[in-house]
Parts: sequence; structure tokens; C-alpha cells
Amino acid sequence: MNATTSTPELFAKHKESLDKALEAVHKRTFYAHYPEPPSKRIYGETANDEGLAAYQAQIGNLLPLHQQHDATLVSDEASPYTQEALNLSYPISENPQDYIDRAQDALKSWRKVDVQSRAALLMESLDAIKERFFELAYATMHTTGQSFMMSFQASGPHALDRAIETIALALFEMNRFPTSTFEWVKPMGKFEVKMEKRYRFVPKGVGLAIGVSTFPVWNTVPGLYADLITGNPVIVKPHPLSIYPIAIVVQEIQNVLAKHGLDVHIAQLATDKAEAPITGAFTDSEAVKLIDFTGGNAYGDFIETLGGKGKTTFTEKAGVNSVILDSTDNLKKMLGNLGFSLSMYSGQMCTCPQNIFIPKDGIKVNGEQVSYDEVVAGLAKSMAGLATHPKAGPGILGAIQNPATAARVKEAASSLGKVLLEGPEVSNPEFPNARLAAPSLIEVAADQYEVFSKEVFGPIAMVIPTENTEESLALAKKLASEKGAISCTLHSTDEAVIERVEEEMAESATPVSTNFTGNFWVNQNAGFSDFHVTGGNPAGNASLTDPSFVTKRFTIVGSRVFIPEPPAEA
Amino acid sequence: MNATTSTPELFAKHKESLDKALEAVHKRTFYAHYPEPPSKRIYGETANDEGLAAYQAQIGNLLPLHQQHDATLVSDEASPYTQEALNLSYPISENPQDYIDRAQDALKSWRKVDVQSRAALLMESLDAIKERFFELAYATMHTTGQSFMMSFQASGPHALDRAIETIALALFEMNRFPTSTFEWVKPMGKFEVKMEKRYRFVPKGVGLAIGVSTFPVWNTVPGLYADLITGNPVIVKPHPLSIYPIAIVVQEIQNVLAKHGLDVHIAQLATDKAEAPITGAFTDSEAVKLIDFTGGNAYGDFIETLGGKGKTTFTEKAGVNSVILDSTDNLKKMLGNLGFSLSMYSGQMCTCPQNIFIPKDGIKVNGEQVSYDEVVAGLAKSMAGLATHPKAGPGILGAIQNPATAARVKEAASSLGKVLLEGPEVSNPEFPNARLAAPSLIEVAADQYEVFSKEVFGPIAMVIPTENTEESLALAKKLASEKGAISCTLHSTDEAVIERVEEEMAESATPVSTNFTGNFWVNQNAGFSDFHVTGGNPAGNASLTDPSFVTKRFTIVGSRVFIPEPPAEA
Repeated sequence: MNATTSTPELFAKHKESLDKALEAVHKRTFYAHYPEPPSKRIYGETANDEGLAAYQAQIGNLLPLHQQHDATLVSDEASPYTQEALNLSYPISENPQDYIDRAQDALKSWRKVDVQSRAALLMESLDAIKERFFELAYATMHTTGQSFMMSFQASGPHALDRAIETIALALFEMNRFPTSTFEWVKPMGKFEVKMEKRYRFVPKGVGLAIGVSTFPVWNTVPGLYADLITGNPVIVKPHPLSIYPIAIVVQEIQNVLAKHGLDVHIAQLATDKAEAPITGAFTDSEAVKLIDFTGGNAYGDFIETLGGKGKTTFTEKAGVNSVILDSTDNLKKMLGNLGFSLSMYSGQMCTCPQNIFIPKDGIKVNGEQVSYDEVVAGLAKSMAGLATHPKAGPGILGAIQNPATAARVKEAASSLGKVLLEGPEVSNPEFPNARLAAPSLIEVAADQYEVFSKEVFGPIAMVIPTENTEESLALAKKLASEKGAISCTLHSTDEAVIERVEEEMAESATPVSTNFTGNFWVNQNAGFSDFHVTGGNPAGNASLTDPSFVTKRFTIVGSRVFIPEPPAEA
Repeated sequence: MNATTSTPELFAKHKESLDKALEAVHKRTFYAHYPEPPSKRIYGETANDEGLAAYQAQIGNLLPLHQQHDATLVSDEASPYTQEALNLSYPISENPQDYIDRAQDALKSWRKVDVQSRAALLMESLDAIKERFFELAYATMHTTGQSFMMSFQASGPHALDRAIETIALALFEMNRFPTSTFEWVKPMGKFEVKMEKRYRFVPKGVGLAIGVSTFPVWNTVPGLYADLITGNPVIVKPHPLSIYPIAIVVQEIQNVLAKHGLDVHIAQLATDKAEAPITGAFTDSEAVKLIDFTGGNAYGDFIETLGGKGKTTFTEKAGVNSVILDSTDNLKKMLGNLGFSLSMYSGQMCTCPQNIFIPKDGIKVNGEQVSYDEVVAGLAKSMAGLATHPKAGPGILGAIQNPATAARVKEAASSLGKVLLEGPEVSNPEFPNARLAAPSLIEVAADQYEVFSKEVFGPIAMVIPTENTEESLALAKKLASEKGAISCTLHSTDEAVIERVEEEMAESATPVSTNFTGNFWVNQNAGFSDFHVTGGNPAGNASLTDPSFVTKRFTIVGSRVFIPEPPAEA
């Protein structure tokens, strides 16, 4: 008999939270497990100071992990705010195969831990990470260039809520069919055929979670926890420029595993440097069965081809997101919200709009026609105003993660079309050396499809004057189908237009966000409610965190034991 | 506004059946919607005569379909029982692109039919097919070589029950998240963010269902109905040697579509001949997004590579199925059941065992050791007895579907190893010209992995003497992992061995059937209870009919409309 590891008391501790989470997943009404404000009232008077101190103590030092290692690596991480190296080091294995061997070994024990206990252990790890939300925020800020607020929310409560979604979903899916033995009785007229049946939920194998530089935690955590809850060990391969934040996550998972006497190699961190990448060793391995990837199209397309080689892949790549302006009853708020969306984290978000389609005759505002020029001028003004706002500006823009992005954007802007707004010079008093770039706005003609159909990552947006909303929609739909899209923004006061755009964009598997004029931006996807990416257009082949995001990670295997009829009475 | 087609009355008619089906799907206890015995009491006094008459009337004639066509094609179908051509003809389009164009057009209206109405319409089609179960049985018999009984059950009630499974599952999955608008309210401290949200379930695109010669209906219907219920139009591309049975299915679907004023091209039949295949035109098409395939490994592997090109593929290929004999308390029944499994339809089933692993020291029977030689001799005797049984033999063996199989098998047997049983000469008094081949039994050494690891389709089984059950299991597991497996048979009286084999084979994603000694064979998978294929080893990448079999066919796309706060009171 093979023993199954079970920790019913630990599960009982988290059951109510998981029940609530699953209810939210199915109702899709608002729900949050971890509060998003980094407030003292919620997280404690000293939480921020302690987090900052922990961050500062880590700088220049080794981040210890429980996993076996034979060397350490000093990473190339550097703060986009100070442009100084963080001089962090991580334990590594020189031979990538060692990670795979240890993961394969860890699979044997992890799959024997029942799903309830896995859920409980993973919830324990999340609660431990919660205690480090502020350190995690500083780690995220100084690797990605996100503002402190975005860093706190994206790497902290928002990311962890997405992890809870996958845990709750997996609990549902893996208890959906009977896992304990039951009797199957088939009436055959004069007799019955009887069997004992049961189903096993078998993990697929070793998982690989490949991180992205701009959102090292938010984009990695869903796949990481989805692998773990379904019984698969994971190798986390962070982007070489943002390791620290996700290292905290792996560290806390390993702490929980160690505490409960489990193999710490169920979750490993495999750190590398850009000049000596190790990802290929993992993607080439037969043992790696699951790959989660967030990043650029070229490598993402390669990852997807591995689907033809027996691997299950979950990709989020780049898309070209559209905005369709048709009409509004609040021009100012529309321009304010849109300007904010374009400026947030200097456009370094996969959900950030790129192309703004506006009818050349302008749009209706409260029934009155407002000219194209006026709308465009208003948008440029909104963007410039936000970027240069002395108090809010630095928090909206954050810093530019990658030096290459900053350089590329400067050059690109004028080559694309007519410059309507050149990103104004901005400064961050707190971080005078911050790598900054305020968004530019460029006008491109509607027949310049080859220009605006390319993804331009970072602080550049394009305005495209169209014949009418019909043409705007046609272009947005074509872009989504051919180049992929993760978001689509619409402003319209016409119910028929809203329905039409939603229907047409749905055919290109793109969600539409309409009339956003308040404190919520198209860039944001809410945990437990908004699926992130649809998997239905070239922007990615997976949807965080729909049921397939979980069910593709295991196989259901039935077994049948025949029950003979009792011998006939003499 | 886009109108949605809805037929609530029709759905009401089928609701109870669908509710029962879904309950069975989740409980996985015995359930059948269509009774499996071809009895007069159930299907009517005249059903068989009428079915035979309909079959005879069809022979030599055109099978009419509603779909557009510009030519007709006389198929190469020929009865394995009479070896005469059926001279059936089918309406076709000379240019394969025409099928794709019509399917893309049909998608527009079909996706607007709500899922409840699609379910009801599809149930109507199944009820119409039920009225033709006997014709379908004769059509299946004279294209596949299956016995009448197997033809009736596999193409009739068993196939249609699998269709109902997918319909019921899709109804669940597509109502799992809110499809009508609801309010999402996020508390933000001093104010709230409110949105109207809804989710659309968007079909992926044109489906392609590629049929297999031996099970033209059973293996096609799950994917066909899964595509249709989720809103995708389908092109059915049958095997050139067994078109008639699935043509009946498509015909009845088109009848229902036509009756309800819907586009008949939602389901099309695309017939070709082996010398001028058209499948490539469909697999090459960008528009084709879903492919269901049953058949050989070479083409199946190719289909799976299309997963890297934006298509979702569902394959069932070949595997090498193992039998592990460890111990039994009823040697006679064990050998009888196993002999039957090996002989059924002359081994032309993907679930049929191929390799029988037996410890060279024999097995325990009621605590007493019975020698390897005795077990093997008993098995050969059981097989020969069944094949040559004057009454039961022809019904067990059926006929050999493909002339190539018969020729290949004759040659192959002696080249594999030591011939323990040469398939005896058999005859079928009812069909003196039937293409027959009784199974042979060959002994192959355990170190001849390259011999027994090749799939040998048709009436050949191999016995492999091993050191012990441990080695038997190791070889069966290796085979399943490396070559794929759809079934595994075990005979053991030891609970620990049963648990061990189930656990180990589960790691190779192979279901285990233990101690089958009565009127049920490992070859059979029960609708609503046994998943068919696991998708977790090289025998296929999909599992009929688990939730993923349905959910991968659509995309969930959310939409959000911001609700502004009411203006503050003056």
C-alpha cells in the first residue's frame, strides 16, 4: 500500500477561505482574500518599516533557499529607480539537469499528498508571503520599476488572490468525480455486472514557470500554484533582471515544505543570467510536461510549438490593444481615464492600450459633435498633465524597467508618424537617477496597418483617424485576430454599438471594457472575476484562471475491479 | 442588437434527459439513455426488418444530403462479409475550400443559437438517428466487419450515449459562469467601483472530425457533438472505407437543422477516396481551429503538431495494451474472459490487449501454483475454442475490415516469435466469402522489447514470460509511457498488487481493469462512467469525454461596462 500524506487539521484551518474563494470564482462577483491597500491599519504600524529594512538587509547578499545547490550566482538585477546594481546572489546548480532530476524525484512524494492537504500547505505559504508584502513591494519596485503602490498590489494581494483562485478551482475539479471506490452496477436483464471503480487525478510531470521582467510575481504565481495544487513539482525560471520578488515566493513555499517534512524540491528556483541562459535545457527535457510562459512573441511562439511534442503550454505573449472612441457623456473623465491607462507604469503592461481609433469627424459628446482635433488635443493634454503632475506623476509613470526600452522608445516615436505629443521631460524628486520616460502620442493613418499593427512596448500610443466607428471596429477586430489582443477599450453611449463591439471583439476573443471613467482602468483585471487573456487569439494560448488553466495539468485515470457474482445457492 | 435564436419549448422536452445525463456524468454510476439490446421488445417488432430493408435500398444508390454540392462520388466501401462493393455514392464539392467557406458562414448563425437550444436540436438529431439504429447497424457491419451485435451497440446506443455526455457536460460548462449581466461592486473605502459584467462563450471556429475505418460512428460522434454543442460548425471527413454509417448521422443532423430553418452546413460530410485525399486541405486551413482524429500514429502525430499552430487537437492513436497475470481464484473464467477480449472483432479494437505478461514460474490459482505452460496452453485453448465455436465464433470474430490487415497478420505472426497458436481456419456459414482471421498467439522473450513494443493491429497477441509480476509491471509501465496504452488488464487476488499496479500504471496514465471474469471485457468502455483514453500517454492527447474534451472548444470572453457614480446631490 502506498501511503497518502494527509493533513486534515491544516485543511480545516483554510477550508472556509477556500469555500469562499470557490464561490467567488463561480459567481464572479467582487472578492478579495488579501486586502489591497498597503495601509498600516490593515498590515500593522511597523509593516512598512520592517519591509523596507528587510529589503535593505537583503541588498548585496545571498538569498538563502532550502534547495540543493553547488554554486551561487550574482544576478544582474539593478534598480530602475537608482540604476544601481542590487548585487543579490542566489544558490544555483551548475548543471540544469540537476533541477530536473530533483523535481522528478519530488514528484513521487508530492503526488501522494492529497489535494486537500496540498491546498492547505499552499495556503500556508501564501499567508507566510503576506507577512512579507512590504519587502516584496520594495523588491518588485527596484527590479521592475513599478511604483511602490503597483508593486505592493501586483506582487502582493493581487498576485496571491490569483493563486487562491487556482487552488480553489483545482479543489473543485479534482473532487468533481469520485476519488474513493464506488460500486458500478450494470443491469443485464437476468443478471448484473458489478465493478468497483475509482478515479485517480494524476499530475502531468515536471512544471516549468518562465517569468517576465515587468511582472515577476503576478504573472508567475498563477501557473506556479496551478502546477503545485495539481501535484506537479515546478522549476521557476525567473527573468534575469527580476529574480528577487519571485525568490521570496519560492523561499516561503520551501519553508512550508521543509516545516512539514516534505521535499523542498517540489518548488525550485533556477536562476540564470542573460548571457548564459538555461531555459533551453528545461524546454528540451522530456521530463518537463508543463510550461507557463509570459513574455515576448518570438519565444512564446516557440514555447507553443512544444505543444506538438507532448508538453502542455500556457502562454501569455504580446498583443496590440485597441481603443475605440465612439461617443461619451463625459469627455473630461473619458480623457482622464484613458490618459491614465496610457501612462500607468509608462505603458509597460500587456493590458495597456496601444492604438486609439477615433472617427475623423470626431465623436458625439452628450449629443454634440466634438471634433477629432479637439479630442486628440484633450488626450495629449491629459497625458502630459498626468506625467508632469508634481505629486501624482512619479507614481503613475514608475520607471522604465529595461534600459533597452527607454532607448528604443525615444528613437521609435518620430519614425512612426506625426508626433502629437512628445513625452515631456519628467523627474522623480525621490529618485533623481530614475530611468524615466513619459508617454508620447503619435498619429498614424488608417491605411498604415503595417505601422500600428506592430506591438510597441512601453510609453508610446498611437491615434488612428478612421472613417467612422465601423472602421474603427473592423481594424480593432483584425488586429486582435492577426496580432492578438488582451484588452479592448470602448467609449460609447449607444447600447447597440456596445453590444455590436462586444460581439465582434468576442469573435476575436478579446474582452471589451466600456466607458471606464472612474477609478478603474482597462489595464486592471480583477481576481476572481476577470479572466486574464482569453487564449483565443495570438496574444496567448491560455486564460488565467479559467477551468482549463487547472484541468490541463492533470490526467484522470479510472480503474475498475470486477466483482464476481456470488456462487449460486445449491 | 444581434438576435439570439432560442427554442425554449424544445429544450424543455429534453431537459429531464439532460439533467439525468449530467448527474450520471458526475456520479459516474451506471447510466444509459438508449438501451443497448437490439431487441424487438425495445425497438419494435419490425425495426430489424425495416432497418435491413433501408440498408438494402441504399446499396448502389446516392445517399442524399441537404448540403450544397457540385458532384457525386462513388465510394470504395465494400462489405468485409461479402467482399462486394457497396456502390454507394455521396454528394461532394470538388473544391475542399467550399466546405470551409460554408462552414465559416454557418458559424455566424450557429453561435447565435443559445447553448440550451443547441442541446435540444442535437438531442432531436440523436432521437432521429435512434429510429435508424438497425440500418446503422447493417451499414456499420458491412463497412467495418463488426458483428451485427457490436455494430448495433457501438454505432447505435453506445455512440449516442457518448454524444449525450458531451452535450450535458457542455451545458454545465457553458452555464458555469454568469452569461447574463450582473453588477460587480468593488468597495474602495469612501466610494465603490461598479460595473456591469457578462461572459460570452465563444466557439473556436471550424471543426474537423476525421474518422477511422473500424469505428466510424463511435469514434467520431463524441468530437462531432462536442464541436456542435459548443457552437462550432463541423466538417466530417470519414475514412474512405466506412462512410455510410457516419453519413446517416450527418444526414439526420442536417434534417433537424433544415427543419428548424438553420444553416445545414453547420455539419457537413466531406467524402474522399484513398487515392485523392482531401484532409490536407482542411488541416492546412487557417479557418479550421479544432481537429478530432482517430487513427494511426504517423498521421496522429502530425495532427498533434498542429497544436503548435493555433489549432486545438483531440487525438486517439494506437497504443500497446498490456495484460499482467499475477494470480486468480478462477483460472477458467480468467482464461475465458481474456480469450474473448483477444478475439472480439478479431483484435481490431484500440482497447484490445496485445502483450500478456506471465511470470515464467506460473501464477497462483486459489493459492496453488499453476505453471506458465499450463496457463499459456489454457489461453490458446480458450482462443481456439471461441474462434471455432460453431454458434458463437462468427459473432465474436466479425470480419477483417481491411484486406491489408488480413495479409499483414498472416505474414507477421511467425516472424515475431514462437507460435503458440496459429489462428485456426474459421468460417461463417451466413457469409461464406467473409474475410476472416482468428487470432494467433505468439511467445516473445522479455528481452525482445523491440518486438513486442510495436503495435500489431488485428488478430495477434503475444505472451511474454517474465521473472515475476514486478517485471511484468515494469514492462507494461514502460510500454505505456513510451508507446502509449489505452487499457491494461490485471488478474490478481492480492490487494497490495492491485493497488500497486493501479498506482504505477496511473503514472503512465493508463486505466487498469482487474479480474474481469464475467460478461464484460477490458475492450469495453462504459458511457457516462469510463473516460476513454486518458490523454496522458502517447496513445492520444485527449480523453473522451472529460471536461477538457468540451472546454477546449470554446473561449470565455468577459465584458465590463463601467457604471458611473450618480452625481453628488446639490
